[in-house]
Amino acid sequence: MRDVAVIGVSQTKFGELWDVSFRDMITEAGLGAIEDAGIEGADLEAMYVGNMSAGLFIKQEHISSLIADHAGLTPIPSTRVEAACASGGLALRSGVMAVASGYHDIVIAAGVEKMTDVVDPTPAIATASDQEWEAQQGVTFPSLYAMMARRHMYEYGTTREQLAMVSVINHENASKNPRAQFPMKVTLEQVMSSTMVADPLRLLDCSPISDGAAAVILCPAEMAREYTDTPVYVKASAQASGTIALHDRRDITRIDATVHAARRAFKMADLTPGDIDLVEVHDCFSINGILAVEDLGFVEKGEGGRAFEEGMTRIDGDIPVNPSGGLKARGHPLGATGIAQAAEVVWQLRGEAGERQVEGAEVGMTHNIGGTGGTAAVHIFTR
Amino acid sequence: MRDVAVIGVSQTKFGELWDVSFRDMITEAGLGAIEDAGIEGADLEAMYVGNMSAGLFIKQEHISSLIADHAGLTPIPSTRVEAACASGGLALRSGVMAVASGYHDIVIAAGVEKMTDVVDPTPAIATASDQEWEAQQGVTFPSLYAMMARRHMYEYGTTREQLAMVSVINHENASKNPRAQFPMKVTLEQVMSSTMVADPLRLLDCSPISDGAAAVILCPAEMAREYTDTPVYVKASAQASGTIALHDRRDITRIDATVHAARRAFKMADLTPGDIDLVEVHDCFSINGILAVEDLGFVEKGEGGRAFEEGMTRIDGDIPVNPSGGLKARGHPLGATGIAQAAEVVWQLRGEAGERQVEGAEVGMTHNIGGTGGTAAVHIFTR
Repeated sequence: MRDVAVIGVSQTKFGELWDVSFRDMITEAGLGAIEDAGIEGADLEAMYVGNMSAGLFIKQEHISSLIADHAGLTPIPSTRVEAACASGGLALRSGVMAVASGYHDIVIAAGVEKMTDVVDPTPAIATASDQEWEAQQGVTFPSLYAMMARRHMYEYGTTREQLAMVSVINHENASKNPRAQFPMKVTLEQVMSSTMVADPLRLLDCSPISDGAAAVILCPAEMAREYTDTPVYVKASAQASGTIALHDRRDITRIDATVHAARRAFKMADLTPGDIDLVEVHDCFSINGILAVEDLGFVEKGEGGRAFEEGMTRIDGDIPVNPSGGLKARGHPLGATGIAQAAEVVWQLRGEAGERQVEGAEVGMTHNIGGTGGTAAVHIFTR
Repeated sequence: MRDVAVIGVSQTKFGELWDVSFRDMITEAGLGAIEDAGIEGADLEAMYVGNMSAGLFIKQEHISSLIADHAGLTPIPSTRVEAACASGGLALRSGVMAVASGYHDIVIAAGVEKMTDVVDPTPAIATASDQEWEAQQGVTFPSLYAMMARRHMYEYGTTREQLAMVSVINHENASKNPRAQFPMKVTLEQVMSSTMVADPLRLLDCSPISDGAAAVILCPAEMAREYTDTPVYVKASAQASGTIALHDRRDITRIDATVHAARRAFKMADLTPGDIDLVEVHDCFSINGILAVEDLGFVEKGEGGRAFEEGMTRIDGDIPVNPSGGLKARGHPLGATGIAQAAEVVWQLRGEAGERQVEGAEVGMTHNIGGTGGTAAVHIFTR
């Protein structure tokens, strides 16, 4: 198995990008990563694209071909990978395997979602849950995560204020991220008094509907220094599946897929949570930030709320979480998120994260989940 | 790069499976392949599933998690791969890479589509074309392939009868395949007088709307004989992209993605078309059978029609094409097709294809395309 490095990254501005089409958005991200890597399009040997539901959002499947064509990259192999909101993380892992296997040397792994071209994105998002047991019954994602939050509050005494602090810290970080959809601070009071969506989750507990794309360029580790002075190495690429529907889980206050993927990732990298200098977690709702720091092993089960309340997860804290602003404030174009997380970690490990830089960051992690945790992808990167 | 072998295969009956759900269908295929390999579910380390559009057909994305869960295979990594009708071929290639890379030893690569639970599958199928330039203008797949057929007739003198012979031979083969959707013979006259769909293509030139699933089990070649006395080896796994929309191609009588993927596959396997004992080609419409034998290099450009007319492609001909009955008569559950093709080749190379056996088959090929050729996957297998 060949070791793999990241030599280029890129992310478009996330937001409601009314004036940019799906195909132009992903091409912009791809060109950005190509430029960042100092290569040419013709150097690319394969493409993997994470996308949850262009079929439902813009009536377009077969986006792998569309993108290769629109970007002028035919005839290279181009593959779409999907696992709801974890699509980006899985595209990254597929790209890593393509390089690790020796099938391809220089590979682009990208993610994209165009969510604002449909009148109501809610039914499309609901297809990430179990259609027969959940979506068809009218369940939406805020309501599913609200149940997880309620149970976590009941089991562990997690407070409404602790949930709010996930959003407060995310927005504080996003205010230093020019690519974020919402680069502005919010106060605890603003979160606590925002519109109720699904009790106990309020509007400012929820990640937004976003358009956006991101891309990373991978190559064999031994070739990386031909292209860059600041390669970042993929030390672990792990993925796990869990029960898709909430009612069938033994415990809805923990995401088993995260636990399994994290365990494998740490084993693969021969590292422990204490070695991680920053982590980009999948906080599509504030409760999921709390679950993530617990399930990834940064704090004991039930201590996640306190970690955010006490500032442990701030950029200057013990375990900086989402210096990018996370899904809440950077934005969450579903298929792009897993790749955007990787891009942020790469910028951090290169020391290029500007005002949101985690000082001396040497080891970073990404955590990307699909649905309410039916899929989890965990990656560890080092300088 | 590790060599990869197939140790188990399975295919459900293809057809209008009103009484079987999506999740039960893919589980049936998976269990069949597990049984065929003589392993247990717990031996599987990862899953790849090809599926074009469960989002549009049954309102379910995130099928990777759903299937791992329903089949009791959590927490193994499960990944959906999509490239329209080539989804199965790409799932196979992803599985091959997962084994070749050393990430996983025993991997299941499967494909599934449930097309009959939606009132009109046509809009979903149209999402395999370019939404902005084709689907939105009202183009359907029969009309796109009809244009390709018309041009082929104009350029090379291909006749209506030659197109019909693709279907006649497919049905003849399918009549010996108990898993086929239409296991009955049709005459040249029946094809020529069937309902017009998109001139010159008639009903019996078109593959049907199908439900179905298929699965193969992969492992490192050096482990294969621990599981089976009849391993089949993956000698080449190649994939290419082409222009998605027809109007933008230099030539609509040839599918460039097929040409590129075939060239790479032959190079990888160090073989030539003359070495292939049978091929499963992607004949979603009769014209595509003709394009395939030309673009894969079995006959000169323009000679495809004659190859079918003169019987060269029959089971006892020079290059047996689609002993299974092909997409036309075995059926075409989009995401399952690429895997079903691989299953057929494995049965042929094992000598287990019953009445449709190609005598002494030692080398087989599969050819799976997406849309009108925006994606092509070509695999070569040997005993």
